Amino acid sequence: MFDRGAADATYRYTLVEKHLLELIESGALIPGDRIPSLRSMSAKMRVSVSTITQAYVELESQGVIESRPKSGFYVRSNFRRLPLPSTEENALLVPRDVNRSELIRTVKDLLGRKDMLPFAVACPDETLLPGKELAGIMSAILREDPNRAMGYEPVCGNQELRKQIAFRCIDAGATVMPEDIIVTAGAMEAISIAVRCLTRPGDLVLIQSPTFYCFLQLLDTLGLRAIEIPSRADGGISAADVANAVSQYDVKACIFNLNFSNPDGSVVPDEVKEEIVRLLERRSIPLIEDDICGDVYFGPNRPQVCKKFDRKGRVLLCSSYSKTISPGYRVGWLIPGIFYERALDFKVTTNICTATPSQLAIAEFLRTGKYERHVKRLRAAIQKQMEGMQRCICCHFPAGTKVTRPSGGTGLWIELPEKVDSKEYFFRARALGIGVVPGLIFSTLDKYRNFVRLTCSGVWTKKIQEGIERLGDLAEQMKSQGIQR
Amino acid sequence: MFDRGAADATYRYTLVEKHLLELIESGALIPGDRIPSLRSMSAKMRVSVSTITQAYVELESQGVIESRPKSGFYVRSNFRRLPLPSTEENALLVPRDVNRSELIRTVKDLLGRKDMLPFAVACPDETLLPGKELAGIMSAILREDPNRAMGYEPVCGNQELRKQIAFRCIDAGATVMPEDIIVTAGAMEAISIAVRCLTRPGDLVLIQSPTFYCFLQLLDTLGLRAIEIPSRADGGISAADVANAVSQYDVKACIFNLNFSNPDGSVVPDEVKEEIVRLLERRSIPLIEDDICGDVYFGPNRPQVCKKFDRKGRVLLCSSYSKTISPGYRVGWLIPGIFYERALDFKVTTNICTATPSQLAIAEFLRTGKYERHVKRLRAAIQKQMEGMQRCICCHFPAGTKVTRPSGGTGLWIELPEKVDSKEYFFRARALGIGVVPGLIFSTLDKYRNFVRLTCSGVWTKKIQEGIERLGDLAEQMKSQGIQR
Repeated sequence: MFDRGAADATYRYTLVEKHLLELIESGALIPGDRIPSLRSMSAKMRVSVSTITQAYVELESQGVIESRPKSGFYVRSNFRRLPLPSTEENALLVPRDVNRSELIRTVKDLLGRKDMLPFAVACPDETLLPGKELAGIMSAILREDPNRAMGYEPVCGNQELRKQIAFRCIDAGATVMPEDIIVTAGAMEAISIAVRCLTRPGDLVLIQSPTFYCFLQLLDTLGLRAIEIPSRADGGISAADVANAVSQYDVKACIFNLNFSNPDGSVVPDEVKEEIVRLLERRSIPLIEDDICGDVYFGPNRPQVCKKFDRKGRVLLCSSYSKTISPGYRVGWLIPGIFYERALDFKVTTNICTATPSQLAIAEFLRTGKYERHVKRLRAAIQKQMEGMQRCICCHFPAGTKVTRPSGGTGLWIELPEKVDSKEYFFRARALGIGVVPGLIFSTLDKYRNFVRLTCSGVWTKKIQEGIERLGDLAEQMKSQGIQR
Repeated sequence: MFDRGAADATYRYTLVEKHLLELIESGALIPGDRIPSLRSMSAKMRVSVSTITQAYVELESQGVIESRPKSGFYVRSNFRRLPLPSTEENALLVPRDVNRSELIRTVKDLLGRKDMLPFAVACPDETLLPGKELAGIMSAILREDPNRAMGYEPVCGNQELRKQIAFRCIDAGATVMPEDIIVTAGAMEAISIAVRCLTRPGDLVLIQSPTFYCFLQLLDTLGLRAIEIPSRADGGISAADVANAVSQYDVKACIFNLNFSNPDGSVVPDEVKEEIVRLLERRSIPLIEDDICGDVYFGPNRPQVCKKFDRKGRVLLCSSYSKTISPGYRVGWLIPGIFYERALDFKVTTNICTATPSQLAIAEFLRTGKYERHVKRLRAAIQKQMEGMQRCICCHFPAGTKVTRPSGGTGLWIELPEKVDSKEYFFRARALGIGVVPGLIFSTLDKYRNFVRLTCSGVWTKKIQEGIERLGDLAEQMKSQGIQR
C-alpha cells in the first residue's frame, strides 16, 4: 500500500519545492526573478536533476513559477501571498437563538458522496488512512476468537483502548488515567454528551466565531442559546474576550476548539489557554474542549490541550480518531473530569456502549504502535495538499481573496471578495461536482456571507488542482456578476 | 459451531419433555401419578429408549418428576405450577420525578462481567449468537476492499441495511420503505433520539409499570417526569388505562414495549394495540414503540407492532439486533414517521452516523438470509431455558413465589414472598456470583420491592440450574429471616 521508494522521491522533491517557496516568501526571489537552473539547484540540494525538474514542473502547475522558452524558470509576475481573512475586532456580544439546521442539512447531504470533489468533507482521503492495516487487525481478532466482538464492552469502553488513549494524552500535555476516559462513537458524541450533561434548554453557551457548524446544529437541537466571541486566524480567541463574555452573561458552558480550529485553523497559544482555564475556573464554568485535530500539526511540536491546565476537573476533553485513523469506525473519547459519573449516565442512556468491533480494532492498532508512524505520514500529506491549495488559490482566485495559513488541521478558511455570496457559491459549486462549505453556517450571526471552508483530504492531484482552479473561476465570475447588479 | 446430529437429538428429547409437561399441566397426570414407562413412551413417540431416558433424567433434574427404585418415574408430589405475579388493579396516576440512577448504575456494573451467572444481562449466550458467521462476513468484506469500512455511511445509515430492515418489518406488520429508517447504535439510541425529539425537561411521559429500567434512567438524565400505568403479566397495559392517563394529564409522549415487555414478558393483543394507537392519534400524542424482542416469539406467529396501525406517522418504532444477532455490534433502528427530519438532526448531532464495520457486517448477514435460520434456533433455545428455569423455580423457591409464563422475550419476572427485599437479594446474590436485577428499579414508585427479573441467555446447563437452585435457597433463607424480624 505504501511505496517506500516513491515516497522517498516525493519527499526529496517536496524539499526542493519548500526551499524555493521559502526563497520567494522571504523576498529573496521576487515576482519576475529568474530562479536557479536545474543543474545548479541539483548541485546545491544534492538531489538528481530529474527530482528538481519534477519539483519545478509541480510549482509551475501550481502557478508559482513559469518557464520561458530557452531561458529557464521565473517567479510568476502575478504570484503573491494572500492576506489572512479579516476578523471583526470589536465583538458585539448578543445571545442568539441557534438556527442554521436547514442549510447545514443540505451541506451534510454531501457526506459520503463519492461523485463530488471532497472540499466539503473534513476527512482524509482513504488512500491515506490505514484501511489495510485495520482490516488485517480486525480479521486477526475475529479469527482468533469469533465471539470476541459479539458482546457489550463496559459502558466506559474497552480497557486496552482507554489505556492507549490515556498514554497518548501525555503528548497533548494531559495526565489522565484509563479510568478517567469514556469511549464514545466519535468526538461528536463526546461533545454531545458533554453539552447535555451541563445544560438545560434556554441556557447560554459560549462559542468561537466562526465555529464548527455541527456545534450550532447541536445547540439548536438542544434548545440552547449561543454567544460568539471572535476568533482570529492568527491566534484564535483572546482571554479578554472570554472574560468579557462570562462577566456579562450567565454562561453555563464553553465549547472551544483551540488547536487548529475548524474552520479558521487558528491555534490559541498555550499560555493563553492557561489564562482562559484559570478565569473560567474562578467562575466554575465548565470548558468543553474539542481537540480533534490536535495530532495533525505541521510544526515540530504538538500544541497542548486546555486539560493540561485543569486543576478542578472542569475541562471536558473531547477527541477522536476520525481525522487520523478512520471516520467510519466511530471511535472517540470524552474525559469529563468531575462530571464523570453524570457523563457515564448519559453515555449508557445514549447507546449503552460504543461498538465492540470498532473498539477492538482501534485498540490493537494503537497497542502495536502503528499509529505514530501512520500519523506522521498523514501530517506530511495534508500539509503538502494545503500548501498546494494555498498557492493555487493565490493564482486562480479573484483579487480581494484572503486565505488562512494554518500550521495544522485539515482545512482552509477563505474570504472571497465581498460581492460573492457563499450560499449561492455553494450551490453553483455543487452543480459543478465540487463540494465546499458556505461560511454562513459557521455562525449564528449573519457573518461570513462571503466565506467558504475548503478541507484538505491529503491528496494533491491534478483533479484536485483543477477543482481549485474551477472554484477560482467561479468566484471570479460571481464577483463580476455581483458588481454588475 | 452447530452440530446438526446433536441438535436433532436435542430436538427429539425436547419434544418428549414437552409432551410430558403437557400431560402434567393439562391435569392428565397429577402429582404422585406414575408416568409412562420408558419403553411404552418410546413406542408411542417413535424415538429411541435412550432419548426418552435423556428426557426423563432432564425432567428429574428439574424437579418435575422423580424416580422410585424398581418402580419407575412419578410426577413429584410437590410439583405445581406457580401463579402469575400480581398487579395493582386500581392504578393511582401520579406524575413522578424519575430517580433510580444510582441503583441502576450498580446493576449495570454487572454488564460484561464474565464471572457472574448471567441472570442480570438480557442478551443471549455467545454460543447461541452467530459469532463465527459474522466474523467470516466481516473478514470477507474487508478482504474484498480494505477501505470499505473506513469512511462514514450516510447519517440515516447504510442503504442495503435499511433495505433489509424494511423487508423484515413486513413480518411485524409494518409497511415501511428504506427511506423511512434511521440506523442507530442499538435500540437504546433509537429510543433516546425519539424521546429527545419529542420532549423538553419537565415534560410528562407515559410508561408501563413495571418498565425497562434504562428508560427510567433516560428520563432521569433528560429531566422528564413519568406517569406509570399498570402492566399485567397476562395482557400488558389496557387501552382504558392509557385513555384515562392521557385525559387527565398533558402527556407529551408514550414509551411502550408491548411485545414481550421487559420485565413482565406480557404481550398486548394486537386489537388492543390498534385501540391504543387510535386513541393516542385523536390527541396527537406520539407513541415511542420498543419492539426489541418482537422476533423472539415462541408461538407460531409474531405479534404485530403498533406501527402497523399508524395512519398519522406518530408511532416511532424502535428496535435492534442486540437480542438476536449481537449486542456488541450496536446496530438498531428508528422509524420515526413524521418526525424523520428532526430525528435525523438528532442522530447527526449525537454521533454523525452508526459505525460502518458493524453496519456492513449485519447488512450482509441479513442479505444472505442467515438471520431467519439463526433466529429460529435462538427462539427454541431461549424457550427451552425459560421452561427449565420456570420448573426449577417451581421446585426450589419458597412458597408464595409467583412467576410469569411469557410466550416470548428473554426474561422471567418473579414475585418473591413479601418479606424478601429484592435490593438486599441483589447484593447477596451478587456475593454468590449470581447476577439478578432487583424489581425496585423497574418503577419510579416504591413498587416491586419483592420482585426480581431473571433473564434467559438461552443455555440450560447444570451450572445455570444450580444457580437457580441457589437463588431459591437464598430467597427461602431471606424469607425466614424476614419473618423473624
